[in-house]
Amino acid sequence: MHSLSNFVFTRVLNEDPILKTLTLLGTVPATATATTTATAEEKSQEVQPVILLIEKTHFATQSAESNITCRISELLSTGSNDIYHWWNAIILEGKAYDPDLKMTVISPVTEAHIAKYSRQERKMITETAEIYHKAILPWIESQPKSRIQWVYNILEGLKEQENIILRDNDADTGFIVLPDSKWDKRTLSSLYLLAISMRSDVRSLRDLKPEHLPMLKNLRDKIMALIPVRFPGVASDEVRMFVHYHPSYYHFHVHVTHVSAQVPGSTVGQSHLLDTIIDNIENIDPDYYRKASIRFALGVNHPVYTLIQGYQSSPQ
Amino acid sequence: MHSLSNFVFTRVLNEDPILKTLTLLGTVPATATATTTATAEEKSQEVQPVILLIEKTHFATQSAESNITCRISELLSTGSNDIYHWWNAIILEGKAYDPDLKMTVISPVTEAHIAKYSRQERKMITETAEIYHKAILPWIESQPKSRIQWVYNILEGLKEQENIILRDNDADTGFIVLPDSKWDKRTLSSLYLLAISMRSDVRSLRDLKPEHLPMLKNLRDKIMALIPVRFPGVASDEVRMFVHYHPSYYHFHVHVTHVSAQVPGSTVGQSHLLDTIIDNIENIDPDYYRKASIRFALGVNHPVYTLIQGYQSSPQ
Repeated sequence: MHSLSNFVFTRVLNEDPILKTLTLLGTVPATATATTTATAEEKSQEVQPVILLIEKTHFATQSAESNITCRISELLSTGSNDIYHWWNAIILEGKAYDPDLKMTVISPVTEAHIAKYSRQERKMITETAEIYHKAILPWIESQPKSRIQWVYNILEGLKEQENIILRDNDADTGFIVLPDSKWDKRTLSSLYLLAISMRSDVRSLRDLKPEHLPMLKNLRDKIMALIPVRFPGVASDEVRMFVHYHPSYYHFHVHVTHVSAQVPGSTVGQSHLLDTIIDNIENIDPDYYRKASIRFALGVNHPVYTLIQGYQSSPQ
Repeated sequence: MHSLSNFVFTRVLNEDPILKTLTLLGTVPATATATTTATAEEKSQEVQPVILLIEKTHFATQSAESNITCRISELLSTGSNDIYHWWNAIILEGKAYDPDLKMTVISPVTEAHIAKYSRQERKMITETAEIYHKAILPWIESQPKSRIQWVYNILEGLKEQENIILRDNDADTGFIVLPDSKWDKRTLSSLYLLAISMRSDVRSLRDLKPEHLPMLKNLRDKIMALIPVRFPGVASDEVRMFVHYHPSYYHFHVHVTHVSAQVPGSTVGQSHLLDTIIDNIENIDPDYYRKASIRFALGVNHPVYTLIQGYQSSPQ
């Protein structure tokens, strides 16, 4: 794919008005290599599906010389009240050094890609301790180890070693730290690191007990010490450390983000602060995570959602 | 103010690359009315500060006829890997029905406005039970009741009655529900309601004990029942109910948002799910909120931040 002049719009797969993102499904003429056996006429009619992920860019660096207000071609007043004035603005055509959109084109795509990039209906649901032990834990245990082979590849030093920022090889309390794939590795105000435990017996926070406190504290304290040294300008108390429940893979890991980064996955009902976890086990109840009912938002196609719904309608 | 042709950029007050928002401080020539006693020459040099809040617009409704890809004037490839292709795009000058920016101009502004719209440095900090009882609670108790007079005005039926969606007048378990001022009252996918307790003896979640479980459950259950009736298209399990700690005012209230709305205040370390609160008190420990260490992100100018820092350096 080299241009969008032949792109034909099919439908919107997803959009987010707060993040200003849009995901479109459409078609482009099938490439010649894919249709070598077709006649010229057939070729002209064959199309292939493509997905466009489109995002408005952030504003370019502002200065007295380069300023968004210099690009405004027209202002349209939409209202006024006291000292407040509301306008819509149209801006002049952009320049290559200040583009308007960032795009990812996925081509060609399969039905699986289309499902992955389509809006998922999300619901709040509660996992009681009983549901976890009777319906969810057996499902987690049934998953093949090969699904998290990529984690072992990193821990064992076989892959992504160039990315590792910190390594503590202690079998009980050790962990590695590397940049999260969503981080651009540059912008400190959106810093996003991932810490992965060396232990493979902690699948999620549900497994955490007092015996894991040394691991949790070692991880917290060493990352707090690392941050200002490795990322000058970011202080130890300017990072938020949390785990997801449910996580996207069942090997204990901790997300580390800059406190001012509004990371979508850091929402209450999906995330649990590392310090709250330590306090719950140490100060409130050693069995906290074996007993708690945990509520979270989940896509209705997620296996955990289906398992909880199924258990509620006919407990085993 | 009627145009920006005379706007002179001073500095960036704030920006958010994820939300694509920018807050600029600048100056415009002082208006004639403000300088009637000045000479013509003085007038030409006098300027007044203004604040511009600028936000990129979301994409206009997509259809086969009206499509963002039709506005692209140039594509600049930034990389490619397998089926993934990354591009920057420049778009043609916009139209009045599809503006590029939404702007709020505040003019004239004072130092207080500038402070309010400037980026606040935020830090993570932990409030132990000891710090709460010795340093924070006395500060909360010292606040004049007049600061939350607006809450009593609503509860007592004196103000904003036209906004009330639900009222339960029970002195122990009652509450009112009204739209949050941040909601546009139209877009269901960004639904945002506020529930305010009738009781005035619960200042925050720190005060919650087993005796409050009937109030918490009454509030939860009645709002769950209200949602699909009052907002057809939104199901009971498509709202997230949570409280802030610290709240912005010390009279117990609950935030109710659509599960797919990425509300900035719903971040872990600022928000606590209502269902988690109920479970912690009922199922884990009746004294949970009297004992817990609570960690949160807070602006360094917030009085609570100053009090905790002060207590840590010299406990009383």
